[in-house]
Amino acid sequence: MAKEKKQPRPRAETPKGFRDYFGAEVEERNAMLAEIARVYALYGFDPLETSGVETVEALGKFLPDVDRPNEGVFAWQEEDSGWVALRYDLTAPLARVAAQYRNDLPSPYRRYAMGPVWRNEKPGPGRFRQFYQCDADTVGSASPAADAEICAMLADTLEAVGIPRGDYLIRVNNRKVLNGVLECMGLADEGQRGAVLRTIDKFDKVGEQGVRELLGKGRKDDSGAFIEGVGLEAVQADPVVAFLTSKAASAEETFVNLRAAVGESAIGAEGIAELEQIAALLAAQGYGPDRIEVDPSVVRGLGYYTGAVFEAELTFEITDEKGRPRQFGSVAGGGRYDDLVKRFTGQAVPATGVSIGVDRLLAALRAKGRLSGETRGPVVVTVMDRERMADYQAMVGELRAAGIRAEVYLGNPKNFGNQLKYADKRQSPVAVIQGGDEAERGVVQLKDLVLGAKLAEGLSREEWAEQPAQVEVARADLVAEIAKMLDRA
Amino acid sequence: MAKEKKQPRPRAETPKGFRDYFGAEVEERNAMLAEIARVYALYGFDPLETSGVETVEALGKFLPDVDRPNEGVFAWQEEDSGWVALRYDLTAPLARVAAQYRNDLPSPYRRYAMGPVWRNEKPGPGRFRQFYQCDADTVGSASPAADAEICAMLADTLEAVGIPRGDYLIRVNNRKVLNGVLECMGLADEGQRGAVLRTIDKFDKVGEQGVRELLGKGRKDDSGAFIEGVGLEAVQADPVVAFLTSKAASAEETFVNLRAAVGESAIGAEGIAELEQIAALLAAQGYGPDRIEVDPSVVRGLGYYTGAVFEAELTFEITDEKGRPRQFGSVAGGGRYDDLVKRFTGQAVPATGVSIGVDRLLAALRAKGRLSGETRGPVVVTVMDRERMADYQAMVGELRAAGIRAEVYLGNPKNFGNQLKYADKRQSPVAVIQGGDEAERGVVQLKDLVLGAKLAEGLSREEWAEQPAQVEVARADLVAEIAKMLDRA
Repeated sequence: MAKEKKQPRPRAETPKGFRDYFGAEVEERNAMLAEIARVYALYGFDPLETSGVETVEALGKFLPDVDRPNEGVFAWQEEDSGWVALRYDLTAPLARVAAQYRNDLPSPYRRYAMGPVWRNEKPGPGRFRQFYQCDADTVGSASPAADAEICAMLADTLEAVGIPRGDYLIRVNNRKVLNGVLECMGLADEGQRGAVLRTIDKFDKVGEQGVRELLGKGRKDDSGAFIEGVGLEAVQADPVVAFLTSKAASAEETFVNLRAAVGESAIGAEGIAELEQIAALLAAQGYGPDRIEVDPSVVRGLGYYTGAVFEAELTFEITDEKGRPRQFGSVAGGGRYDDLVKRFTGQAVPATGVSIGVDRLLAALRAKGRLSGETRGPVVVTVMDRERMADYQAMVGELRAAGIRAEVYLGNPKNFGNQLKYADKRQSPVAVIQGGDEAERGVVQLKDLVLGAKLAEGLSREEWAEQPAQVEVARADLVAEIAKMLDRA
Repeated sequence: MAKEKKQPRPRAETPKGFRDYFGAEVEERNAMLAEIARVYALYGFDPLETSGVETVEALGKFLPDVDRPNEGVFAWQEEDSGWVALRYDLTAPLARVAAQYRNDLPSPYRRYAMGPVWRNEKPGPGRFRQFYQCDADTVGSASPAADAEICAMLADTLEAVGIPRGDYLIRVNNRKVLNGVLECMGLADEGQRGAVLRTIDKFDKVGEQGVRELLGKGRKDDSGAFIEGVGLEAVQADPVVAFLTSKAASAEETFVNLRAAVGESAIGAEGIAELEQIAALLAAQGYGPDRIEVDPSVVRGLGYYTGAVFEAELTFEITDEKGRPRQFGSVAGGGRYDDLVKRFTGQAVPATGVSIGVDRLLAALRAKGRLSGETRGPVVVTVMDRERMADYQAMVGELRAAGIRAEVYLGNPKNFGNQLKYADKRQSPVAVIQGGDEAERGVVQLKDLVLGAKLAEGLSREEWAEQPAQVEVARADLVAEIAKMLDRA
């Protein structure tokens, strides 16, 4: 007879890179997303919810040379559907929907989407393999007014969730201007173009001279290491430097500088004209440079942007892990991408949109003290007599009817200390106690756990005498007295 | 030189069994879930959001004899995590969380969870491979008060989302009573026990005599086909029939009948005592048999239930696909399961909970006319002069500031007819029109699209004369006039 193998117990763990969200984390995110949805809806955007699973083919992450979809997505093979994968963003499913329902959807189609996306990447501190995205896009409009609308809506959204004006800045640029600069430099080679774009991204760190060196022969960095340059002639660097230093005190001056930087390039001129339209529309609606400004240094990594690009930064300072002050940084970004729907239909469909980094924005609101990360727990009615459970249930029933979170302790009531420990763990503001004696006298004891915690932290004796942490009240006054305590807390 | 292969265009399709949700479908579901969450929170339940992906080991869907997890789940292998799968319900992740955080969570732990789950099953009409679940569970309480609380909360929830009292009934039973009946029959064989349970489930259809035949030698069904029986002695069927016919006019009588049915069985007596406690607690809280009643015919399929089981049915009639009236049926169910956490820790942890069928409940609310399935579209400001885009943006800005959904038409404005077709497709209530002439005169045209649709459906000429579908108003009165039209609509 075969020996019976004892099954080992399963480990109670999430897969690597995944996590659980509890209580306030869930509530605060839902509340923020609901507020964002309210603003998006005001702007005429409609919700769309696609499923987590898409065909790999629709996601566009299929490499023709290999058997398995490339890294970055969670993919597997199904008998009836072939390779499928968890969506890695909300833009690819939108492109699929825009193509699939092109005859039924209004055009332009304004839609917003919120939900988890999955990335099969190496997890790290604060980097998870499932996280929320929150996008708004307009599909089917080539008008710069659509880009301007996204920027204005983003500003309204940030203010609506609790980022005050002055604490954020939305910076707008246009890829066509960049392409104009590259054209003006006479660069046709894709590799060299990419190298120049990466150099532009370093301007913040290395400055004008650094960029000139990196575009030329190379540069020694602070550690003394030599960074190989792009190898351009010194004169070729001029348009890049002109472009990078084009941001002036006013948008008008910036445009003059940009026109100089793109020279005769037609695509560059087109980009500048679009930027001007966006800036004019926003200015007319009162979105001044204190909220949204043209900034030629915004590049944004994604290759698929074809026109306007934008980025929202939070400008207030936080303290990093090492105690140093630094700017909070980017919480949202997006731009115009005219080629995503074309993959499916062959027809170019202009589109523009923005994605908010949900976790980043939540972290910002916490840093600003707008979210506590804690919810007030329920009033806990303790159980002194197991036989009088119905009495205790009646108490919570009355409290709930008045809109107050309340629960009866449902563990083993034998050890009363455990019940109070439980109430503490629940962050309960008030514990209700009624033994047989109190029941006979028609009273209940209310233990103010918020005040109790303050007392434990060292309220003075006088304050304590004035506000005892436990009071006896008439059973009939239970709800009113607790409501008073909650107002005070 | 190798011939360059042209990549075929990807198909714009969801994988088989998946679907997209648009506009009102998303909004109505979110609103319903928010209302459910509000009730759950009042009862002291805290939200928990786990990720979509779990290890197969934690889900408990791994068969030791095969290489691949069994059917029913979407699973794949990851290099660093082994076999992982999309969660197929919200209970298995809860059991994992209860084990993983057992030292940190309050005990009892009341949690609710809402979100998509995935089933790798053959899709069919109305059956999708991704759908929402909405659960509430109490982990760590063996008290029948926890079961009673779930039932009371379920009743409150159904009423809160819009199912009026009288249109639903929550039926409660206890698996231990069933086990007592089986014990009383002297059945130890698992196969025979299962066969008896399946027979009990058929009582509604075949009646007492049918059950007796099916428990004995067998039975001819309506089509004349012979159904093999369980093969019990006639006398063994008595406890089953006593059990099935135990439901009486009052809970007290039902309990007398049940006690007769379980005879000397200790487990049966325990089940009846638990049911009595639940009934007494609910009665004391005013949840009478018009809302929640003990009903011994509730079995519920899932093998893991160990005590109380409950099911919420909607009792109003709807018309099925064939035009026949039928009861709407079940929208929620649950029960007590004391062994799920034990898999991980070796220690039994009592738990009880309920799962609401989100799509079923939404369908019920639609059937009752509580949800329209449609949202009111935004006010559409049309574009007569491309150059005056800023003026049109100002209009929508004012409307939004008054809380009115509004958008500027952002497609190609050349064909004005297309703009009005667009407004129709958007289900827009009002289109705003301002050409150069109107701008000069400081007026706008408001086209009432709701009224326009009514006119098209045949309003009388007199009615039409009184309420023309298009009016000219002062530009300064734009917001006030539109607000009036929306109030009327």
